[in-house]
Parts: sequence; structure tokens; C-alpha cells
Amino acid sequence: MASSEDSLRQSLAEKQAAVDAQAEAVRALKARSGIAKDEIDAAVEVLKDLKMEHGAAAKRLQSAVSSNSDGSSKEAFRQAVVNTLERRLFYIPSFKIYRGVAGLYDYGPPGCAVKSNVLAFWRQHFVLEENMLEVDCPCVTPEIVLKASGHVDKFTDLMVKDEKTGTCYRADHLLKDYCKGKLEKDLTLSPEKAAEFKHVVSVLDDLSSEELGAKLKEYDIRSPDTGNQLSDPYPFNLMFQTSIGPSGLLPGYMRPETAQGIFVNFKDLYYYNGNKLPFAAAQIGQAFRNEISPRQGLLRVREFTLAEIEHFVDPEDKSHPKFVDVAKLEFLMFPREEQLAGKSAKTMILGQAVSKGTINNETLGYFIGRVYLFLTLLGIDKDRLRFRQHLPNEMAHYAADCWDAEIECSYGWIECVGIADRSAYDLRAHSEKSGVPLVAHEKFSEPREVEKLVITPSKKELGLAFKGNQRMVVEALEAMSEKEALEMKKALEDKGEVDFQVCTLGKSVVIKKNMVSISMERKKEHQRVFTPSVIEPSFGIGRIIYCLFEHSFYTRPSKSEDEQLNVFRFPPLVAPIKCTVFPLIKSQQFDEVAKLIAKSLTAAGISHIIDVTGTSIGKRYARTDELGVPFAITVDSTTSVTIRERDSKEQIRVSIDEVASAVKEVTDGQSTWADVLWRYPTHVTTHAADE
Amino acid sequence: MASSEDSLRQSLAEKQAAVDAQAEAVRALKARSGIAKDEIDAAVEVLKDLKMEHGAAAKRLQSAVSSNSDGSSKEAFRQAVVNTLERRLFYIPSFKIYRGVAGLYDYGPPGCAVKSNVLAFWRQHFVLEENMLEVDCPCVTPEIVLKASGHVDKFTDLMVKDEKTGTCYRADHLLKDYCKGKLEKDLTLSPEKAAEFKHVVSVLDDLSSEELGAKLKEYDIRSPDTGNQLSDPYPFNLMFQTSIGPSGLLPGYMRPETAQGIFVNFKDLYYYNGNKLPFAAAQIGQAFRNEISPRQGLLRVREFTLAEIEHFVDPEDKSHPKFVDVAKLEFLMFPREEQLAGKSAKTMILGQAVSKGTINNETLGYFIGRVYLFLTLLGIDKDRLRFRQHLPNEMAHYAADCWDAEIECSYGWIECVGIADRSAYDLRAHSEKSGVPLVAHEKFSEPREVEKLVITPSKKELGLAFKGNQRMVVEALEAMSEKEALEMKKALEDKGEVDFQVCTLGKSVVIKKNMVSISMERKKEHQRVFTPSVIEPSFGIGRIIYCLFEHSFYTRPSKSEDEQLNVFRFPPLVAPIKCTVFPLIKSQQFDEVAKLIAKSLTAAGISHIIDVTGTSIGKRYARTDELGVPFAITVDSTTSVTIRERDSKEQIRVSIDEVASAVKEVTDGQSTWADVLWRYPTHVTTHAADE
Repeated sequence: MASSEDSLRQSLAEKQAAVDAQAEAVRALKARSGIAKDEIDAAVEVLKDLKMEHGAAAKRLQSAVSSNSDGSSKEAFRQAVVNTLERRLFYIPSFKIYRGVAGLYDYGPPGCAVKSNVLAFWRQHFVLEENMLEVDCPCVTPEIVLKASGHVDKFTDLMVKDEKTGTCYRADHLLKDYCKGKLEKDLTLSPEKAAEFKHVVSVLDDLSSEELGAKLKEYDIRSPDTGNQLSDPYPFNLMFQTSIGPSGLLPGYMRPETAQGIFVNFKDLYYYNGNKLPFAAAQIGQAFRNEISPRQGLLRVREFTLAEIEHFVDPEDKSHPKFVDVAKLEFLMFPREEQLAGKSAKTMILGQAVSKGTINNETLGYFIGRVYLFLTLLGIDKDRLRFRQHLPNEMAHYAADCWDAEIECSYGWIECVGIADRSAYDLRAHSEKSGVPLVAHEKFSEPREVEKLVITPSKKELGLAFKGNQRMVVEALEAMSEKEALEMKKALEDKGEVDFQVCTLGKSVVIKKNMVSISMERKKEHQRVFTPSVIEPSFGIGRIIYCLFEHSFYTRPSKSEDEQLNVFRFPPLVAPIKCTVFPLIKSQQFDEVAKLIAKSLTAAGISHIIDVTGTSIGKRYARTDELGVPFAITVDSTTSVTIRERDSKEQIRVSIDEVASAVKEVTDGQSTWADVLWRYPTHVTTHAADE
Repeated sequence: MASSEDSLRQSLAEKQAAVDAQAEAVRALKARSGIAKDEIDAAVEVLKDLKMEHGAAAKRLQSAVSSNSDGSSKEAFRQAVVNTLERRLFYIPSFKIYRGVAGLYDYGPPGCAVKSNVLAFWRQHFVLEENMLEVDCPCVTPEIVLKASGHVDKFTDLMVKDEKTGTCYRADHLLKDYCKGKLEKDLTLSPEKAAEFKHVVSVLDDLSSEELGAKLKEYDIRSPDTGNQLSDPYPFNLMFQTSIGPSGLLPGYMRPETAQGIFVNFKDLYYYNGNKLPFAAAQIGQAFRNEISPRQGLLRVREFTLAEIEHFVDPEDKSHPKFVDVAKLEFLMFPREEQLAGKSAKTMILGQAVSKGTINNETLGYFIGRVYLFLTLLGIDKDRLRFRQHLPNEMAHYAADCWDAEIECSYGWIECVGIADRSAYDLRAHSEKSGVPLVAHEKFSEPREVEKLVITPSKKELGLAFKGNQRMVVEALEAMSEKEALEMKKALEDKGEVDFQVCTLGKSVVIKKNMVSISMERKKEHQRVFTPSVIEPSFGIGRIIYCLFEHSFYTRPSKSEDEQLNVFRFPPLVAPIKCTVFPLIKSQQFDEVAKLIAKSLTAAGISHIIDVTGTSIGKRYARTDELGVPFAITVDSTTSVTIRERDSKEQIRVSIDEVASAVKEVTDGQSTWADVLWRYPTHVTTHAADE
């Protein structure tokens, strides 16, 4: 393994040398005036090819290293990232001076800026692009809403308590830790036992409370902190509970997701959209989950930002007019079949995955494609992103299909976006609980003939037979399903009478032929009334940001090669600060130019910082590379300045009047760095202090 | 009154005619080619003057109408605004299908867009412009933090309960309603009684629980719903309480403000800022207040968005380098003296208010000026905005000065932004509770000599005298304040011994002269350590938005004059949708052009809607005027289109290629409508369907 790594390193170094040489040649070409345009173009093409090869080699090296590496090197990488993130205040454990609270984190200044950039891009990419109806609902939610959604009854984890200290643990975590520990550390393990532990880990999510409890007993699993006996597992509801108003009579919860706020508004939103389907509503907001014992840092927290879309669609037509725009995308998918067959994720073309039926429908496929674009544009590495289909046992019974965008980081593959076709479940649940029909209408261009069941109880005969109970019997007859009614019709025709259970009376009555007429009649209908299906892409913003931190982080040696410097390679879109301004040396003149430039950057809406400390320019670059700032303006004259790009360290020279607009161009996505590199003269560093 | 209104109306109509004539003349000038530039400029100047006069006359009319109007016409105006807001889904009572929860509202699509525009502008105007450190902390907060801040003990309202039904009421509301009812409706009221009720209303906020209870008894105030007896008033804590984690042992609350998240992070943020003062941190987020009985619609709610700034500053230097940028602003202020003298708010120049000492310091003054600019740029009417200084009894004992930005709406003057100099209170409170010093350092350029108290207990003598209690006595001696120590020094010199209370022992001991040496010594110090002052501008975003709705709303007759049409005159900055696209008539060609334009608007990041319904163009304009959409593009050819401005209804003709950039220019604030009006040919409506 090591030798293949060495040879990769060797070829990488060679490629780098070739890239450098070619870049030099290109610079020389640029320097000569009157050079033929096509010569330059050809050189650029060669350079691009070399860069791509170089990139590919670097990735192969990276994956060789990571496949070669065991858990401990992943831990070391994570530690390096997390140290940098905490030291530069990307995030901070909340209430640190009071020794914090597990599972609660603050975003510090650069983290907060990254988050607001991610959310602004989400709005642009989804809400604006698709004309979605964005809403903003409260976090405090009355119990009835979450009773209807099922959260009051089912949003639970199984918990065990240390019988002496009362400390709480997640039952499945303890069982998983035990099995994994055995598999990793017990060298005497028999193949049968190993297979058993592996099986337990794989079915962990499906175990009932009783099965989990039995396993804990069988393996004699104790409290990890004290070794004490544990209680039997019991469900703990993960919602933060509170009480609304002063009476104490109206229980409420902090919402566990933002989706319910959209569902309960369906009727108004459908009206707002001109009573037309399909349409999508969206919401960005805080959600809460009172975890039993939060682990995995920023990935499992008690309060987090969700961005959710509910796309309402006719269940009989889930095509999407813009599917063609994403159909050619090709990326890693992990369908059910591959998972069940023990295979890996594979690259598929989205259009084919839908046409073959791997993905249930076009609308679901369209959102999968849009999510892929969203994540990769943010800077998520496409080779560490896959779309995994839920297995039948993972999916709710009502769901038509469900895919998770999973991102690989040092903790493994992490679910960051769920994209589910939830059919009509949510709207039906709220219709039933509230009594308000949440339905859509399709007007027919001309009336259609349909067969309909007609039940006509004879009130006179029923009144004679049941007196005061007549109304209850009438209602029960009218409430029969089609199946029940047709069975009754047959029984009455065959036997003349039938026993009939009336729930509201709590007993059976005898119904005779003359008491009810049941028939199938052909009727003309002018419209179809139906409950729309909902397709729900749901984004865990904090998880996406954490994975982005890991994917963006790298280290490189300082100029003097005596230390490794940290860099976040955020795209300008995401970078917390777009640009820094440094006077090259302490000088009042340069300071004034720097302030002038800062003013023009503010006016252009570009976030930036000035650093007028006397520190060496190299140190100042290193400091801002670590914040992921993509561009640095160095003031080394009173007429023009240099702009340096973070990853390539290339520099161009731009006049002071143009500098704000040049930076704006490359930060708001109108141009790439490569574009401006050709337009402005390259600046070659002449003094050692520069890097 | 009516006749002065009539004459205003008359002069207004004349002004309007003059404006129209002048505009016509200017158009004619424009139409002639080769016209002298300065003639046009002069005409424009005249036109501007006329417009300003017209505007002033319109305002005088408005204020005449509003001062003339009683409560019922305010109610009618509010009802018209609220009906429009609810019908167009600017907001929706939350969980409406479950009959809602008092004090909880959703923002529907246009409301949500307005909110996100207001927040984006807030970030631009404050965070970016001032390089503030933005943070993002959780809503769930452990009790200790809110114990330190005082919220657990003092964030209460006084409540009374209906003794039979248990319904809860705010005690001060009942008393206020009673007094106001008497003042308004009781025609037999003696002048003495009237004066008494007025006095009660004015001191309402200062009444203790006992005083409030006594007044309720004295006036025999009963439950407004049942007429039953009421309980005595008692404090009800307004925080939503919950429990963090599964144990039930860690109580928590939903934060009542975002500020505490910043204070507890002071140490890290100061470090992030290079250990330099001043700097500001900012936070936007949800805050919660479990109101006893919410009233006043969107103004008093149980969950709301706050945007808060904590500007940390050296208490010995509250100057602000950018104060000069706002010093010339002139607007309505309502200083303490004017309020106590029963006068009204008056127009003052900000610079003078600070130099005269009306406003405590430059930094506070700077933020007052920036808040004024923020609110008026959003579209708040400057004549219905005042800055009111807190009276001494309204202010916390530690506050140096405090001003509220109050906006007048149909509910009266509403506090929307508080701008307080809270001195060192918050940082000190958290330092004490957490034991972590939250302080700043000023390094002296050269050491300074200071007089310092030195207390040196003689451990030997104390040990002989107090044996095992020696340590407690030593600690108590060292903990003496300067005053206590100097008193002891004098007593020891005079009498040779002194009684000394040692709290940790729970008794007094006798200290003799040989047991302690107390002296004032001159010492060299290299730095000053101090707790920074904090200046806190705190924005109630929902309240600002509601007032903006009222200030932006007006009605005008339809073309046929048979109905009044609603308009929101939002500036483009705030407008929920920037632009609509209408094909003039049903036509496949026009529909395609419209779609093409929509695509270019999306690419330019401009929110818009297409309306291809067959409705008359006038109706379509009316529909979007009601949403406050500032510009409407009408497709009436395949080469060029018209753009219509909402309030003036003026139209220009623009080629299809240019339309997105023209709309971008006027919506992102690079140009005004007046600017583009001169650049493009004016379009005059030729057919009745147009308006």
C-alpha cells in the first residue's frame, strides 16, 4: 500500500512541475505583446488539461491515504479541523463560561457568516428559482398539531437508566458500542459470535423495546460510567415540552421540524397559488430535539436550523416540466437493490434512474438533481456525496419512495438532506384531526360519468323499527364503506335481513330489506376532489455546514517549510469574508488607500476586513487563509494594488478604481478567477516577505 | 376644522395641477431633440420643488385628517390594513385550522419576503457597514444564565385570576381599561375623579403588586368576562419553561432576548477582535415571551424576531469616530425634560443633542442616528417617528441613558427599537455568577504610578490567636473594601484593637494592631483592567414590519371610480416581489416573451411573478399594487415592453434585452425611478384596458 502511495506522490510531484512549467510558459506568452490569440488559447487548453490531471492525481492520492488510514488518522484529521474551527470561532460550545450544555453550540462570527451565505444561496437556488411560497411559523406549537402529526406518540428514542445514579443512556447506543467494541478489540471472538454482533448492529434500528432489553440482558451490558445495573428500555419523547399561556392548561412543544407549519397552512397557500397544483412552500427555521445524550459534535445537536420544502402535487401526475434540465446529471446513487446485495454506490445518470423506475417519479428525481447541484455548488466534494435510497424497513408505511443525500466525513456517511415522497399522509392526518378538508380540486373541461355508491335509508321504516335510536342507525348505514354496503346489499337480496353493528348504540340491530336501498348509480361529475401528495426535501443546515468545513479543509507547508498552515478552500459564495485589505508596509499613505478601498467594498456590499497590524504579509495571508477568505488585496502603491487568490496564491495587479468591481465580479459568481487572471496583468512576488 | 381641511384640499388640487402641467412641459422639452441641457435641468429643479411642496401639502392634509379623526376612524383604517394583510397572506394566525393560539402568527409568502428583506438590509446597514461580529446562539437556555441576567427573578407581569373560572388577566390591563373607560364614557365624572384616573394611568408601570391590588379593590374591578371576584395580583414569569435532557434535573427556558448569548461570549469575541475595544457583536434570532393575555395583534406576540447589537466600549471614552457622519441629521426627539414639562417631541439636530448633553454620549448618539436612517430607508414616515428618552423611573438603576425609537400607528406610539447605554451591568453579572472575568485591558505606553491599598495580615499572630480559624480571618481581612480597611487602620491606630465581623465564622473576632498592616502604597501599573460598558440597540423586527405596513398603506379610486383600490407603497428594498410580468393579451408569442423575461429576472436575482391569466390588465395591476410590487412589466410586443411604476403609474418603454438590467438598477438602489424615467422613452397609455 505504501509503495502505491509513494508512486502516486511521485507522479503528483511530476504533474505539479509540469503545471508550473506550463504556467511559466503561458506567463511568458502573455508578456510578449502582439502574440497570436490562438497560441494563447492552445496554451490555456494544455494548462487546463494538466490542471485536471493534477487534480485527479491529487484526489487519487487523497483516497489512497484515506482508504489506507484507520480510525485514528480520521480522528487526527477531525481534530485538526475542529481545533481550527474552535480557535477561529467558527463555532463555540454554548454558555461556555457556565461549562456549557451538551448538544448546544453557537456559531461565532465566521461560522455565522457561512451559515447566512448558505441560507441566502438556498433561497436563491430553491425559493426564487422555483417561485416557492416561503412561510415563517413559530417554534412554539400546541400539542394538538403534533398529536395529529404523530410526534407526541412516536417521536421517541429508547432510554435506559443507571439504577443507582439515574444517569440516562440511549439503549441502542450502548448495544452498538458493546458490539463494535467486541468486534474491534476481542481477538478471541469466534466467527459465529462475530457474525452475530455484526447482525445486531445492522438490525439495531428495527429492534423493539423488548428485543433491545433482552439483548442488553443477554450481553449483561451495564452503565458505562459506573458499571451499575440498567433499567429496562422505555421510550423517551424527544420534544422539549412547555406550557402556553399562564393557565398551565395548554401544553405545547418546541417544534421538532418546520414542515407542520406548512401543512396546517395548505388551504390558504393553495388559494394563494390560484387554486392550482403543483406548487411548493418552503420554510427556514429552528427545530428542536431533546437528545438523550448528544454525541458527534455539530452533527447531533439539540437545536438546529432546518430548511424544508413541501412540494404539493397531483398523485396521478408526478411529472416535472423542468426535469429535462437535470436529467443528464451523473452522480453516485445507492439504490435499494445495491444495498441489499451488499454492493457499493454507483454512478448513474439521473434521467435513466427515473426512466428505469429506480427513482419513483420525475418530481422526486428533479429535487434529487437540484439537491446535488446545491451541495456541489456550495463546495461539497462530489466524490464524497451519494444519494442512498431508504430500505423498505426504514421507510414509513405511507411513503412512496425516499432518498437521503449522504455526505462522507470523518464520522462516516452522514444523512444531510432527506428527499421523500410522503404521499398524502400529512394532509390527511391534519384533515382528520382538525375537521378542515385539506384537498385540491381538478375541474373537468367537460363533466365525466362515474359509478357511485348510493345508500338511501328509509327513515320511515327505521323510525317504526328503532324509535329513538333511528338517527344513530341512519348515520351508521350512511357511513358504510363501499365494500360493506355491497355485502349488505347481497345479504339482503339473499336472506331478506342482516345483523348490523351500530357502534354508537354499542350493539347489533337487524336490518330488513325495506329499511334501506343500496345501489351503484352512474353520475356526472364536474370535478375531481383529492388530497395532494407531498414531496419533501428537508435540509439539515448545520450538518451540511459541518461536512463543508471538513471537505474544504487542507494544510500546506509555510514558505519556510517549518510549519503546516491551515486553509479552508470555501468557494466565494460561501466564504465568511470575501476579501481582506492589507497595506504592505506601515505607512500613512497606504493606510489611507486601504481605507478608501474598504469604503468602496462596503458600498459594493462585499464583506471584508482590514488588517493594518505590522505583522509580515505572509503571516497575514496565513491568518486569513485559515478563515477561508478567497481574495486578499495588498496595497503596495497609491495607484494600483494586487489581488491574491487563496488556493493558487496567484496575484494580479488592478488599479484602485477597479478593485472593488473586480472583487465583486469574482465573489458574486459573474466571473471566475481564471477569467480575471487573463484580463489583468499577473503580479510576480519579488520580495520574501510576500508569502 | 372642516373648512381648513377643505382649503388644504383645494390647494393640494392646485399644486397637483401645477405639477401635472410642469411634467407635461418637461415631457415636451424631452421630446424636442437638441434641447439645451441646462433648460432641462432647470425644469427638473422646478418640478422637484413642486413635488416637494405637493408632498408637504399632502402630509398636512393627512395629519389634519388624522388629528381630526377620533378612535373609530383609526380603527377603520387599521381594519382596512389588517383585512388586506390577512387576505393577501402577509400574515396568518398560526395553527388556524385548529382555531389558533393567541399571540402566535405566521408570516405568509409576501410577509416572509418583506421580513427577509428587512433582515438583509439590517445586516447590510449595521453588521457589514460597522464590521460587527455576528453570532448565532440557541434559543434553549439553561437556568443559570437567566438567573445571572435577572430574568428568572424579575421578568414577570402581575396577574390576577378569576376566582371561579381560573381565567388569567394582566392586573395593569384591567386597571387601565377601567380608568380609560371611565374617562371616555362616564359623562358624570367630577374633575377630581377624572384627574385621579388620569394619574393612575400615568403611574401604572410603577405600581407595586400591593398598590395594584389595592386599586383593583378600591374600584371593585371584576373579571371582564364573568363579573366574578378576582384574586390578589401575583407575579407570573413570562419565560417559556422547559427541561434540558432526559433527567428532568436541568431546567431551561426559551430565551426572552438574544443579548445574553453575546454577553456570555464576550471573552472569546474580545480575543477575536484582537483584544481591542470598541467593537460590536450582533445577533438576529427568535425570542419568546409567554404573555398572560396577548392583545394588539402583531404588536404583542409570544414569539418574535429580535435583532440586537451589543457595542462594547471603554466607559472612559464613549466618543465615536463616525459620529460626524450622522451629526447633521435632524429629526423628532422627545427628551426627558419635554416629557416632564408636558410638552411634545421637537425637531433637534443630533450633533447638538449630544453636545448639549441631552443624549449622554457620542456612541449612543451615533446609533440613534443610524437607527433613524435604517427606519426611514425602510419606508417609515419620518413625521411619525420619534426618539423618546426614558424617564428616570423607567430606566434600570445601572443604565446611563436610554432612548426608544417610537413609531406612531393606529395603536398609538409604539416602541420598536430600544437604544440603551447599559453601562457594565451585564458583563459584571455574568462575571460574578460564572467566576470568569469578563474584562478588557488597556496597556499603558509607559507604566503609571497609582495609589493602591495594601492589606498584609500577619499569619503568625493570627495563627496564635485563632488557631484553626486563622484561614477564614485572613481571607476576611483581605476581602475588605478600601473604605472598611481605612476605617480599621484608623481604629487600630486610635484604640489598638477593633471588633471585626467574619461572615464565614458567623461571629465577630477582636483584631489587634500586630495582626495586620494596612497602608496606601504607590505602585507602578502597566495596564488598566476594566469592565467595558455596553451600548445596546435592540430591534423588534415584527413591530417595525407592522408599522411599516401601516405607513405604506393607502387607497385610491379605480379608473372607473366605482371602488377604492389598496396599495402598499413599499420601497423596492422592502417589496416582497420586485416585479411582475404580464402579457397584455392572451397570445402564445407574448407568453414566450414573458417567460424569457422571467428567466432573465431569475438570473439577475430579482423576485417576480408571471400572471398569464386572461384578466384585464387593470385588474392585474390592482392585484399586485395590493402586494406592494413596485414595477410591472407588460409585454405588448416581441421587441420591447413597458415598465410601470406602482405609485405614479408612469410607464417607460424598454427593449427586451435591457429590461432585466433596468429593473435591477431601480430595485437594488443604484438608480431611482426618476433616473430611469429620463433615460427611456415614456409610454402613454392608449387603451382603456390599461388601467
